[in-house]
Amino acid sequence: MEFNYSQKVKNLQARLKGFMEEHIYPSEAQIQQDIDQGGPFSYSMKIEDLKQKARAEGLWNLFLPKSHGGTLTNLEYAPLCEIMGGVTWAPEVFNCSAPDTGNMEVLVRYGTDEQKKQWLEPLLDGKIRSCFAMTEPGVASSDATNIQASIKRDGNEYVINGRKWFSSGAPDPRCKLFIFMGKTDQDNPDRHKQQSMILVPLESKGVTVIRPLPVFGFDALDRVSEVKFENVRVPVSNILLGEGRGFEIAQGRLGPGRVHHCMRLIGLAERSLESMCRRTMKRVAFGKPISEQTVTLERIAESRILIEQARLLVLKAAYMMDTVGNKVAKAEIAMIKVAAPNMACRVIDWAIQAHGGAGVINDFGLARAYANARMLRIADGPDEVHRNQIGRLELKKYL
Amino acid sequence: MEFNYSQKVKNLQARLKGFMEEHIYPSEAQIQQDIDQGGPFSYSMKIEDLKQKARAEGLWNLFLPKSHGGTLTNLEYAPLCEIMGGVTWAPEVFNCSAPDTGNMEVLVRYGTDEQKKQWLEPLLDGKIRSCFAMTEPGVASSDATNIQASIKRDGNEYVINGRKWFSSGAPDPRCKLFIFMGKTDQDNPDRHKQQSMILVPLESKGVTVIRPLPVFGFDALDRVSEVKFENVRVPVSNILLGEGRGFEIAQGRLGPGRVHHCMRLIGLAERSLESMCRRTMKRVAFGKPISEQTVTLERIAESRILIEQARLLVLKAAYMMDTVGNKVAKAEIAMIKVAAPNMACRVIDWAIQAHGGAGVINDFGLARAYANARMLRIADGPDEVHRNQIGRLELKKYL
Amino acid sequence: MEFNYSQKVKNLQARLKGFMEEHIYPSEAQIQQDIDQGGPFSYSMKIEDLKQKARAEGLWNLFLPKSHGGTLTNLEYAPLCEIMGGVTWAPEVFNCSAPDTGNMEVLVRYGTDEQKKQWLEPLLDGKIRSCFAMTEPGVASSDATNIQASIKRDGNEYVINGRKWFSSGAPDPRCKLFIFMGKTDQDNPDRHKQQSMILVPLESKGVTVIRPLPVFGFDALDRVSEVKFENVRVPVSNILLGEGRGFEIAQGRLGPGRVHHCMRLIGLAERSLESMCRRTMKRVAFGKPISEQTVTLERIAESRILIEQARLLVLKAAYMMDTVGNKVAKAEIAMIKVAAPNMACRVIDWAIQAHGGAGVINDFGLARAYANARMLRIADGPDEVHRNQIGRLELKKYL
Amino acid sequence: MEFNYSQKVKNLQARLKGFMEEHIYPSEAQIQQDIDQGGPFSYSMKIEDLKQKARAEGLWNLFLPKSHGGTLTNLEYAPLCEIMGGVTWAPEVFNCSAPDTGNMEVLVRYGTDEQKKQWLEPLLDGKIRSCFAMTEPGVASSDATNIQASIKRDGNEYVINGRKWFSSGAPDPRCKLFIFMGKTDQDNPDRHKQQSMILVPLESKGVTVIRPLPVFGFDALDRVSEVKFENVRVPVSNILLGEGRGFEIAQGRLGPGRVHHCMRLIGLAERSLESMCRRTMKRVAFGKPISEQTVTLERIAESRILIEQARLLVLKAAYMMDTVGNKVAKAEIAMIKVAAPNMACRVIDWAIQAHGGAGVINDFGLARAYANARMLRIADGPDEVHRNQIGRLELKKYL
Repeated sequence: MEFNYSQKVKNLQARLKGFMEEHIYPSEAQIQQDIDQGGPFSYSMKIEDLKQKARAEGLWNLFLPKSHGGTLTNLEYAPLCEIMGGVTWAPEVFNCSAPDTGNMEVLVRYGTDEQKKQWLEPLLDGKIRSCFAMTEPGVASSDATNIQASIKRDGNEYVINGRKWFSSGAPDPRCKLFIFMGKTDQDNPDRHKQQSMILVPLESKGVTVIRPLPVFGFDALDRVSEVKFENVRVPVSNILLGEGRGFEIAQGRLGPGRVHHCMRLIGLAERSLESMCRRTMKRVAFGKPISEQTVTLERIAESRILIEQARLLVLKAAYMMDTVGNKVAKAEIAMIKVAAPNMACRVIDWAIQAHGGAGVINDFGLARAYANARMLRIADGPDEVHRNQIGRLELKKYL
Repeated sequence: MEFNYSQKVKNLQARLKGFMEEHIYPSEAQIQQDIDQGGPFSYSMKIEDLKQKARAEGLWNLFLPKSHGGTLTNLEYAPLCEIMGGVTWAPEVFNCSAPDTGNMEVLVRYGTDEQKKQWLEPLLDGKIRSCFAMTEPGVASSDATNIQASIKRDGNEYVINGRKWFSSGAPDPRCKLFIFMGKTDQDNPDRHKQQSMILVPLESKGVTVIRPLPVFGFDALDRVSEVKFENVRVPVSNILLGEGRGFEIAQGRLGPGRVHHCMRLIGLAERSLESMCRRTMKRVAFGKPISEQTVTLERIAESRILIEQARLLVLKAAYMMDTVGNKVAKAEIAMIKVAAPNMACRVIDWAIQAHGGAGVINDFGLARAYANARMLRIADGPDEVHRNQIGRLELKKYL
Repeated sequence: MEFNYSQKVKNLQARLKGFMEEHIYPSEAQIQQDIDQGGPFSYSMKIEDLKQKARAEGLWNLFLPKSHGGTLTNLEYAPLCEIMGGVTWAPEVFNCSAPDTGNMEVLVRYGTDEQKKQWLEPLLDGKIRSCFAMTEPGVASSDATNIQASIKRDGNEYVINGRKWFSSGAPDPRCKLFIFMGKTDQDNPDRHKQQSMILVPLESKGVTVIRPLPVFGFDALDRVSEVKFENVRVPVSNILLGEGRGFEIAQGRLGPGRVHHCMRLIGLAERSLESMCRRTMKRVAFGKPISEQTVTLERIAESRILIEQARLLVLKAAYMMDTVGNKVAKAEIAMIKVAAPNMACRVIDWAIQAHGGAGVINDFGLARAYANARMLRIADGPDEVHRNQIGRLELKKYL
Repeated sequence: MEFNYSQKVKNLQARLKGFMEEHIYPSEAQIQQDIDQGGPFSYSMKIEDLKQKARAEGLWNLFLPKSHGGTLTNLEYAPLCEIMGGVTWAPEVFNCSAPDTGNMEVLVRYGTDEQKKQWLEPLLDGKIRSCFAMTEPGVASSDATNIQASIKRDGNEYVINGRKWFSSGAPDPRCKLFIFMGKTDQDNPDRHKQQSMILVPLESKGVTVIRPLPVFGFDALDRVSEVKFENVRVPVSNILLGEGRGFEIAQGRLGPGRVHHCMRLIGLAERSLESMCRRTMKRVAFGKPISEQTVTLERIAESRILIEQARLLVLKAAYMMDTVGNKVAKAEIAMIKVAAPNMACRVIDWAIQAHGGAGVINDFGLARAYANARMLRIADGPDEVHRNQIGRLELKKYL
């Protein structure tokens, strides 16, 4: 047991922090404002510039799993995610933003050579972006067997129908690809074999982006939208891995994505706590700085305790994924999905309260941060579904 | 002791509910959409139509205190506030929306005949709207003695300088008047005599509405903005009650306003709970309706318990204001300011969680409802300031 | 709607408070010590003396329902319960302690003349005490249909078998009577007709008090024990109301008992809060009184807010029982059972923390107070069962 | 970074678990009953027998720091503490119970050869026990500078006066030694130099054990008592390290003690959770096992999440103590003191609720477990003092 980061990680942390301090923090407010003023899903050309810089410094595609050409384990990449996550739009600069990272992983693992050439390469180059379309508005998608979208074979094509929302990534104008989940075999008695994943170019006929979905009024972490697919036709070669393998791919995709999201939230919580400390030291009420009031100290301390614990749990989950695999680590992967977003909501909410009015109007980015954290208590399965799973795993020990 | 509403109140509740069911709920979504699409602080002409209808049915200016020409006590008006509060934009239909109600009260109580003629009459007629400008971005305004804006006499005029935010009501295009708080006598050793309130026409030279302040990305309950006042000149006759009386007026304005806000939040919490029940009964996950899961039942039950308790406390505070006055009721008035917004945040957050993705993207109005409730844990003094006051009043019993 | 106590209630409150101040508080610690040193279920002769005094002053059997010879409604009696409840052993002084009050009510309502003469009269005189035996160790008694004890007719006798626990009142040496619940008709398809209540003299052959059940190491509010009934025989005339009426009686017994327990807890919470204020004003740490630290003020304030809200809810439930009856008031009766004990646990726990070591070792009675409050989150149905019921009643509104 | 226990630790865990399963769990209830029936501070001869067995198996004095003849680092010993802590009386079997471990550490580090011979040897042999006397009833001892006891030099003796409580270990009949903290130099302007620690034999004239202090009615984790010292005389050679070094010793004693207490609580929380799982799987209410209700699953899952996080934080603190020292690790040492007891209270309270009546009456050891956890939110400094310290350390980062 050893709680220190490896020298390799420390070096990367230092380089990444250096980049953040030199290039990201100074333009944080300006770029966010550019994005906000551009309307939903707009992006800033300044980000494209920063991408060049990051790539030049070798801070590019850090997420790529060791097993697939990358250089970092989950445990090594996780602390870098935390640093990037402190600024909502920063991960993209390093080509490390969701849902692209998860989509690239899927293509790396399950894509054919042709699929890789067509989609993975431009994604790894940061030339295009992608979207993940699984959740549906019509059903409780927390139970993934509820999913209704259909993928029907018709000759050499699949015909796709369905309505998806919380489709992350679309409609960023740079987005070109959906990874779409739906049922190829609705009547398969094994409910986990009914679904498949398929690649759908955004420009396909029959794809309509209905609306962006602002979360608490903000573009959320992964920029989600509602999308309609009506008789969309794609060649059969677009299927991933084969019919009926959708669940299997979804499972494989889940683990790393959760670690990334959780670490980014931890970064966000850290920055919120920093803001809380700085602000309350400067503001005086009733004769002394707000930071000196014991109720403020209590919340700062609890925030520190909560953050430390959540980080350790996420790092342990990453370690387990690296050493014993996602399947054995399933309880830990479920646990971090509950622990980190709830921690972040708790910490950011205290920070908002400590900022007073400036907190709720997002002058310090806190309202947006809260929206991100709050959404992650629901996205990719609500707390309750994960807690039920963790609970059942616990009970199993005593059967 | 008697927990039943009086017959008079029951009749008004019935008429008001009837109006809501006939005119408000059916157009709730449409009008909200109109407002949202109009951009910050836009309004819907449909509301102007509804105002005529409400006025024709005698559901107009219900807030007006009995002592000043109205017909309802605080205790009688409070349950009506709850009904109106279920829809964010509804109170305006009855000319009962903040900050106009508080401003009208101030004018009724402290205005000269001329001030009443110029400003109160059109306000009571719903022809114009008004703004209340007290909180400042530069200081912790929770400690009202921190306020920095200046009101300096210069011949027959006052010269006004300062920067205000969370100025409710501006810049609705119908808004014509600020009630402005600032210091006329910065050096008065009695810190509670330094401040005054003064009437400032919106069109005065030197008034600049800098920006609307969206709360969590939404127009908040009272539509707040940041406003700059630079060498704004108004006639000396615009002062309210006299120099140094600002605190006194602010105190008198507080009590009823808190009851109104709290009861509106209770109405919002009730509708959120209703939505939670309806939604979870319809959605099935893992083989049974979400409403049947015991964790859902727990939260529905806790919501019911919290709402009932908060309502009783607010009604009791209203009763005390009517019978023993705001000063004696100061602990109760502080208590409801803590209890109701926290209750509403709690209930609405559970409702959001129960709606899944649809909750955070505001498809059921819940994200906006949360933003309103969350803001009221800060507006008009953050929880912590009120709790400290309540705590000190408690300690005093044992000195 | 009217939040003031009636003059009648105010007079009784004044008399009762006077009695508490003259006779109870001064001997609070001493009598508690006598009881504690006497071992489980001992009692103090000083209490017997105080009973005479209370009776002489007309503060006797105040609980007796108006409908049955008493003079007070539930709403009038509730605030008196609160006063008595501030001292754990005080209610007995006024012949108002559980489970005797509930048992007397049952006898008043359902007893035959003979049953009344034999048991009710000495109970009303405070000469004997009684026990209520319903909950069983072998099953989840929160679901009352689980109860297993049998009551079998054999000629002119019933033969009783079963093991009960949380049997309140036994084995106080003055206790002479069990009201016992068990199944007379195990196979009745209507599960609510299977059970009956029957009177069992404590001295019956086959009754064995196995052990007292200290709650968190203390004699609990109602002094509970585990009791075995083996082939206990009582005459058929001992049945209450008739075979199969057990549930019906239990339901009737519940409402007032809950109001009493809840109000007593509110009294206990009030005294804990008072102790918290007094102690923290006296103790200095890190340069100022603990009461001046904002975290202390926060908790004192929250305690005040929680107590006020809980009291109003309980009083409203009492009012509804008086005006529309227990059946219509069932949601409210369930709500107070959740709200009051949780509030009391919350407040008393803060008080313990504020007392430091002195809190957990019961030097201020706080650890015992906590044990009482904590037990009432389970006794008479755990929170979860009540919340489920409340939740279902809420859902019903939208079916 | 590495989250796996070392092979050395795994071996010791296996041996210790084996011993627990063979010797401790089977006699858990019986020995606890023996102790309880013996009255406060009694002990069971069976424990003395088990001590021989443990020693024979080399599971003895495991706590002894590597730096002082032991074989285990803090990080290696911590997980063993967790295993022992699952049964309240078990640590003593391995000569690893508080306050003896802390006292032995003090003697190992600071004792003279003579002091070691007289006191340390029999302690290491498990022949005697010891007591730590620091906290005082008369002052808020959370601020250690408040301590009032005096140690005055008089020729070749020190004269000791003071009243202590929460003196752990006394009056176990085997206890022979106090480590006593008091002021030798009340007027020293450096408040941290006023105090000294001194060895006081229990049999000294003037030492009176006034009373045991049952925590929530139970012998607490460390068996605490109130003790009076009146003109107690000991030779000057009994001073530890020298006059004015009391704080220094106390600080050194703190770190490991906290890790031990926290890990024992984690063990207790684990066993409570296990009990919660087993019990709820067996009990049926309203037609299905309580474990299948989603509210139960939620709490089991949250318990698992909380335990995992707390354990990681404690292990990290232990690691830091080993690698960078207690001083650098002071924030972490403070954090675990808040996190672990609060976690344990939370988990054990849920377990109590899930056991219903059986929970509060301690039939599953849960009420006692709660009392232990609750006491540790106060002992060795209440949560609030630690949170303030953590908060200030956080603020310092931004000064």
